[in-house]
Amino acid sequence: MSGMGSGDSSAGSPMNLIRRIEGGRGEFLLFALTPPRLATDGERAQEIADATLARLRPLGLDGLILYDVDGETERNAVERPFPFMPTLDPADYLAHNLGTWQLPVIVYRVVGKYAPDELRAWLSAQDPARLMTVLVGPVSSSATVRTSLRDAHAIRREANPRLLLGGVAIPERHTRRDDEHLRLLAKQDAGCRFFVTQVVYDVNAAKNLISDYHYECRAQGVSPAPFAFTFSVCGSMKTLEFLRWLGVGVPRWIENDLKHASDTLETSYQQALTMAAELIAYCRAREMPFGINVESVSIRRVEIEASVRLARELRGLLRS
Amino acid sequence: MSGMGSGDSSAGSPMNLIRRIEGGRGEFLLFALTPPRLATDGERAQEIADATLARLRPLGLDGLILYDVDGETERNAVERPFPFMPTLDPADYLAHNLGTWQLPVIVYRVVGKYAPDELRAWLSAQDPARLMTVLVGPVSSSATVRTSLRDAHAIRREANPRLLLGGVAIPERHTRRDDEHLRLLAKQDAGCRFFVTQVVYDVNAAKNLISDYHYECRAQGVSPAPFAFTFSVCGSMKTLEFLRWLGVGVPRWIENDLKHASDTLETSYQQALTMAAELIAYCRAREMPFGINVESVSIRRVEIEASVRLARELRGLLRS
Repeated sequence: MSGMGSGDSSAGSPMNLIRRIEGGRGEFLLFALTPPRLATDGERAQEIADATLARLRPLGLDGLILYDVDGETERNAVERPFPFMPTLDPADYLAHNLGTWQLPVIVYRVVGKYAPDELRAWLSAQDPARLMTVLVGPVSSSATVRTSLRDAHAIRREANPRLLLGGVAIPERHTRRDDEHLRLLAKQDAGCRFFVTQVVYDVNAAKNLISDYHYECRAQGVSPAPFAFTFSVCGSMKTLEFLRWLGVGVPRWIENDLKHASDTLETSYQQALTMAAELIAYCRAREMPFGINVESVSIRRVEIEASVRLARELRGLLRS
Repeated sequence: MSGMGSGDSSAGSPMNLIRRIEGGRGEFLLFALTPPRLATDGERAQEIADATLARLRPLGLDGLILYDVDGETERNAVERPFPFMPTLDPADYLAHNLGTWQLPVIVYRVVGKYAPDELRAWLSAQDPARLMTVLVGPVSSSATVRTSLRDAHAIRREANPRLLLGGVAIPERHTRRDDEHLRLLAKQDAGCRFFVTQVVYDVNAAKNLISDYHYECRAQGVSPAPFAFTFSVCGSMKTLEFLRWLGVGVPRWIENDLKHASDTLETSYQQALTMAAELIAYCRAREMPFGINVESVSIRRVEIEASVRLARELRGLLRS
């Protein structure tokens, strides 16, 4: 039995997700966390981390995502439905509080928040066998940034070329501008090996984007990178409003069902499950590598528990 | 056994579809035909009718639809991909050539083509136990019409109030104007008891329309009328171009798959099947009464045969 520990193929091995993404292969399951609020003291942060990992360990995840939140005041002239709460830095939260998590972690960096030297120092220090990063550009071209996405990509290539890099994919932008697939291919040129979507409520928009992306990959002779499609439950109309504020396209029929539901959270859960099953079937039929990412948008306990339940049910739909 | 002949419940009884629609109930299967070209001689028209009915009889249809075609030159400044071919009048075709078909038939009337007295005479002569009609308004408000849709509805109420009336539902118009559900409710006020969509390639648009329609029915305390969702296969990019010319919204991913398919017709067949299954599941979960209508857009033999195969496979998905 001792020989198995060094094997690549043992389920849950820390290398699994990273090797899979390097090989352009699906079907993986991720769970995305937002770190606790910045004001959280060290002991409480550890309690939250321990409780979170205890919830997530039985799910058979392939990895975690840690989001990097910013105020995004440039996003939208409309008032933010929930007040902005700065959170612990996801890299710090990982280093200080998630040490017992053995599987790969994808840490987001909103690059505009950091000076080039800060980014370089952080990127250099990361272990490519355990960590991947998604570098996120500014939400609008008018945002004030300390480092541009292009510069951040260059820094990653110099500072830690083996550190696997991902990018954000926004189907809604493709609906508006028809060029998101070309932006993704440009990110791939800059080193990206996987993409993570924002929360998907518009399956048609997601299909349009990956369809254009895959046919363009074929035309250019490029191997397609796996997409992780993000799903989330929504327990109230306020959460839905927040998703819209974040730029998530919510079809009318979904909004109608949520608005009239006797149990909004359960209705949303069933919608997410149906949408995920639809995208899984779509990608499989076309041999497009994909994964699923489950995110808890809200910090309400019932919504977190429903997200965990969603991840467990989606695990059953994936071939690992 | 002789008593069964008068029962309402015997499968395939001529009353079935009409009673079902009167009762606001699904799940029915229709097949839509375009009559042969106007230039077809009587003997040839009968051969076509006999061959068509021989193909359709084994399918377990609940009824037929006969389209009334017009040139629709006002529809679109873009050149029509296929030349316009006037066809036999659907009412004449039914009367002269489809006499052996025992089940209900829905005859379309493009009302603008007829003078009020012509419409009145035809409507008066129809047997409400065997026939229903869908009255179709002009495609644009600038079209020259001999009778308006409003007047045609009034004539139907006076001339043959028991003749069951349907209307056309256009999800794509709902996408553009957000008020198609209100137009349908106005048609319902004018006597419509069912709706038939144009060909569905955009499932999301169809869901948005019926969702808004159903919640509006609930708000107004109106019983929802059944929708027949129309599906069609597409065997070539030229047929797809024609569907677009007709106003059908075709999502990018569908067009991409068809464009790159080694077998366009088979790809389209699988897409139609998937879309129909999706809408069936959607409507059932919400108790929205619905039916399925299969239409052969093209007159190519392989496309007609694929439509028949599609109807047969969809029959298996419906609870009759």
